[in-house]
Amino acid sequence: MSDQWQMGAIGHVESPYREGFGIPRQSGIVPAARGVLVPTTEWADPAAWQGIEAFSHLWLVWAFHAKRRMQAGDSSTVRPPRLGGNARVGVFASRAPIRPNPIGLSVVRLLEVQRDTAGVRLHLGGIDLLDGTPILDVKPHVPYADCPPDSQAGWANRAPERLAVVWGAAEVWLERLAPERLALIEQTLAQDPRPAFHDDPERVYGVRIEEIDVRFVVREKRAEIREIVTVHD
Amino acid sequence: MSDQWQMGAIGHVESPYREGFGIPRQSGIVPAARGVLVPTTEWADPAAWQGIEAFSHLWLVWAFHAKRRMQAGDSSTVRPPRLGGNARVGVFASRAPIRPNPIGLSVVRLLEVQRDTAGVRLHLGGIDLLDGTPILDVKPHVPYADCPPDSQAGWANRAPERLAVVWGAAEVWLERLAPERLALIEQTLAQDPRPAFHDDPERVYGVRIEEIDVRFVVREKRAEIREIVTVHD
Repeated sequence: MSDQWQMGAIGHVESPYREGFGIPRQSGIVPAARGVLVPTTEWADPAAWQGIEAFSHLWLVWAFHAKRRMQAGDSSTVRPPRLGGNARVGVFASRAPIRPNPIGLSVVRLLEVQRDTAGVRLHLGGIDLLDGTPILDVKPHVPYADCPPDSQAGWANRAPERLAVVWGAAEVWLERLAPERLALIEQTLAQDPRPAFHDDPERVYGVRIEEIDVRFVVREKRAEIREIVTVHD
Repeated sequence: MSDQWQMGAIGHVESPYREGFGIPRQSGIVPAARGVLVPTTEWADPAAWQGIEAFSHLWLVWAFHAKRRMQAGDSSTVRPPRLGGNARVGVFASRAPIRPNPIGLSVVRLLEVQRDTAGVRLHLGGIDLLDGTPILDVKPHVPYADCPPDSQAGWANRAPERLAVVWGAAEVWLERLAPERLALIEQTLAQDPRPAFHDDPERVYGVRIEEIDVRFVVREKRAEIREIVTVHD
């Protein structure tokens, strides 16, 4: 490729998602997914973040650090989960993670700006990022520019249908876990993390959220939690 | 900076804007600003663009190729035009062009996808790009994810006020220029391209649009065109 540009992380996001499986497929669909943007030493200066509280939402431009890059010889089409995993569209007609340049875009809610002797930290809501994701840029979300009122997104026009979530055999955890943790688990399962072509009601899936492994099955638009296991790395 | 990423152009945009002055400050505010995305040879394969017509709007992730990069020792605050050019905010609380990583984001309207022996070309509306801007990525605009209904953008919550545009001494050009060209000139002046701290009713500004130089003054919310000059490079 001509016109090469060297880009570097200006910070990293601490996220409850420690593995790829289960990460929301777009930002905002799991509001309980909270993370912290920790600037690198070079960008920890509060001046660089001055006045950011004026904005309720921010764009994160980030790098798909855990995915390999698209390479010569790779197919330039992908199968979006929203199309059932069968139909192919071009990589530029999707937001698939394996792309010519490994750039991700997310709108996140700015919950709080923490400023102390350690520098600046941004507390964010609705993230769709793996723990440790490198951030390349942060910009304010500006609705009059970013939200053309007549934008139509074809097969991705509406948010995916949500599953109901039932605790069943894991009910005892309803009293053991903090409400934010319960909300995070429920919202993460509700967005149906299964690969698009899976529909096996017997199959037990595991989603890793912080130090917890949530094991569940999906039957007829309902995610049933089977077991909660605490994992020690 | 740690975590370095090499990014390359996947295409370039042909734009009527040949100079920085006059380029709309956000995408979409000059709908008549049309451009053509020409993929590089590597990404000219129609497969990479298959199905993109399903989306009315696209995100362009691009490189500020005509601006120098932010360097060590630079101020990490900027003075946004919307704040009158006096108040300072952090670089991450603005969309200023000189940034730690020179990444721009624009939502553009997809007008037409041209496919022929030369490959694929995307005809775009509402661009805010200099001619020749390198494009790093293209993604569908997905309103349910990109447009949180409660997003608030503080001092940038509304589109800037528009100027009235009068042709005055240049009236003769109303019959000489094509309607699309007239619309482009009028919409470009209406967004008030002057630097924020300028307010000199005698000063004549020039905006370069394709091969035309539009000379105008601004008086009390009104841009008066003084002269149209055809420029031959």
